[in-house]
Amino acid sequence: MTAPRTIGIDPGTARMGWGIVEETGGILHLVDCGVLTTPAGLSQASRLLQLYNDLRSLIERYRPAAAAIEELFFGRNVNTALTVGQARGVALLAFAQAGISVHEYKPLQVKQALAGYGGADKRQVQEMVRITLRLSAIPRPDDAADAVAVAICHVYAAPMMRRIEQEQ
Amino acid sequence: MTAPRTIGIDPGTARMGWGIVEETGGILHLVDCGVLTTPAGLSQASRLLQLYNDLRSLIERYRPAAAAIEELFFGRNVNTALTVGQARGVALLAFAQAGISVHEYKPLQVKQALAGYGGADKRQVQEMVRITLRLSAIPRPDDAADAVAVAICHVYAAPMMRRIEQEQ
Repeated sequence: MTAPRTIGIDPGTARMGWGIVEETGGILHLVDCGVLTTPAGLSQASRLLQLYNDLRSLIERYRPAAAAIEELFFGRNVNTALTVGQARGVALLAFAQAGISVHEYKPLQVKQALAGYGGADKRQVQEMVRITLRLSAIPRPDDAADAVAVAICHVYAAPMMRRIEQEQ
Repeated sequence: MTAPRTIGIDPGTARMGWGIVEETGGILHLVDCGVLTTPAGLSQASRLLQLYNDLRSLIERYRPAAAAIEELFFGRNVNTALTVGQARGVALLAFAQAGISVHEYKPLQVKQALAGYGGADKRQVQEMVRITLRLSAIPRPDDAADAVAVAICHVYAAPMMRRIEQEQ
């Protein structure tokens, strides 16, 4: 039996970070991670179509059982939020079509799950990604490391959430 | 030969307005319009999947040659922009997959194309939708009327844009 895999996503139209982790015997491994990119010259619709096709290929190749994505967008720019939303929508759709459950986490939850406290900075979270997965270096680029972090958050948060549900 | 149809979209996850217009012999007709809705109880991913499937059905049924959608989101709420962006992303994807060209218009362009000036209010734009399409009443609900307005904007703006391109 293959261990269930979780894919984490850091959404964006120009760059979409992704990272896949697998838990075997209580130990978390990095399966693969990377960044999907689309050329700036294409229309928004064409870029979204390319992202969608690339995501479908990743799903086909790695067959994750669950997907994790950050719930909120932190930033003041409404147009950036709209663009990130577009990429996020296409990702949520690709997972829903493949029957993969999508779990959303607040940035605070990711920080708490990884570094133990919500005030952790980006670098501390990334260093915890490296330590948790027993890697010699932090995954690069940043978008990939951020995607791996939200995938780890899901693996850590899921059993806790199940316990909370059972107690209710 | 069927006259080319244009579909206009007013995006949102809870409600997505749509309107289809057709030009025959220089006269613009309303083919149909309405609102796609998704139940609040569903997850974001499930709602986007439902919107996507409903949009695919509309495309299959009416076979529009072009799609028009507003370019910018006006509002200060970043989380609303993110949610609208998600629905918008799924719509852009559905059109790109069907090989339908997507044209984006600023709210100012829609107002200018419909009412003749950018300072027109929502009600004036809707009244111009009614007059342009020779309807006895403004299409209802608002989301549908707004979607029809952006479709009309495309039909009016497209020949002008072609002339500008030819002159360059």
